[in-house]
Amino acid sequence: MLEFVQLSAANREEGWGVAVKLLEDRIRQDGQVLGADVLKVDSFLNHQIDPDLMAALGTEFYQRFKDVPITKILTVESSGIAPALAAGMAFHKPVVFARKHKSLTLKDHLYTAEVYSFTKKTANTIAIATKFLGPDDHVLIIDDFLANGQAVEGLIDIIAQAQAHLEGVGVVIEKSFQKGRALLDQRHIHVEALARIAAFENGQVIFKED
Amino acid sequence: MLEFVQLSAANREEGWGVAVKLLEDRIRQDGQVLGADVLKVDSFLNHQIDPDLMAALGTEFYQRFKDVPITKILTVESSGIAPALAAGMAFHKPVVFARKHKSLTLKDHLYTAEVYSFTKKTANTIAIATKFLGPDDHVLIIDDFLANGQAVEGLIDIIAQAQAHLEGVGVVIEKSFQKGRALLDQRHIHVEALARIAAFENGQVIFKED
Repeated sequence: MLEFVQLSAANREEGWGVAVKLLEDRIRQDGQVLGADVLKVDSFLNHQIDPDLMAALGTEFYQRFKDVPITKILTVESSGIAPALAAGMAFHKPVVFARKHKSLTLKDHLYTAEVYSFTKKTANTIAIATKFLGPDDHVLIIDDFLANGQAVEGLIDIIAQAQAHLEGVGVVIEKSFQKGRALLDQRHIHVEALARIAAFENGQVIFKED
Repeated sequence: MLEFVQLSAANREEGWGVAVKLLEDRIRQDGQVLGADVLKVDSFLNHQIDPDLMAALGTEFYQRFKDVPITKILTVESSGIAPALAAGMAFHKPVVFARKHKSLTLKDHLYTAEVYSFTKKTANTIAIATKFLGPDDHVLIIDDFLANGQAVEGLIDIIAQAQAHLEGVGVVIEKSFQKGRALLDQRHIHVEALARIAAFENGQVIFKED
């Protein structure tokens, strides 16, 4: 990891971190484009996980948000847990993951929000115990994907209920052609996406040029 | 982390790693005993996660299984992901997490097993894509809890379907008074539990003396 951090610092002047290069190469090599807007990355990100890549991504999130006073990292189960934990290890700050429920009748001591999944075409309630988020918290949201932004919106809703401060949103892969990023930009939220996908063309991933 | 590893090696002669001490102290301090057999550790293990503790636990799993030729680490979503990823980072080997489903109609390209949860009194199907586990794999199962052993049994079933080799089971917390550990011992499976709980007495945790 030390070698990685040094390399990353050196390459930052060229405009990208080593982690971003690793991630984009991996997406090109192992990602599967399905239909018009689905990218399957289950061989290294959200079913099988490459822990070394994940550690590199965690360090990259730290590089991008290290000047912000983060007290807590927030994500949603299950796919968000690995990148959030990797970031938490780099920040040395607690990670809280919201749990998904089909429905919740008992909401005592919980912050809850409704999240619609366009992929699965179902709505879930996400919930976090109130004791783990409060007005003194400065929160970094981490997730694997930013597409339509529903999960992030749910977490922002919960952060508002807790009267905590949202400091930024870090995602591993952003599908820039879907509405999630634009919605966050409109609200002047600091978003860092490690890989930004402009489009899928003939089954190939076209990355956004920064 | 380097300091931790050195300390751990030094203390190993006294019969415990630093990670075990950290974990037991944390369970004593922040664990909540509920009823006869439930230990709530959602402030550092399975809702809010302490990433530094998790990294230490990952290193401890590595210390205990490093002489075994592990190719893959296997767990179940969601609570297993964090300790499995931490172990994966120490082994530099891929982590695969089984997904839970209420029911599955389409089982193409999946290994599946039924898992009953005594805590939630519900049955789930757990599933892993067949492409991520095969006859060449030597598998370490990692989970947060070992109680009745249902989740581990489900993963062992899947490992058998894949004709992969089970090399061992590592759990963060074992409730030794429930049947899971005994079932694995009967089958001569190499089990390492970082904290072993002998009993709950008057709301206090009594650790098993090794």
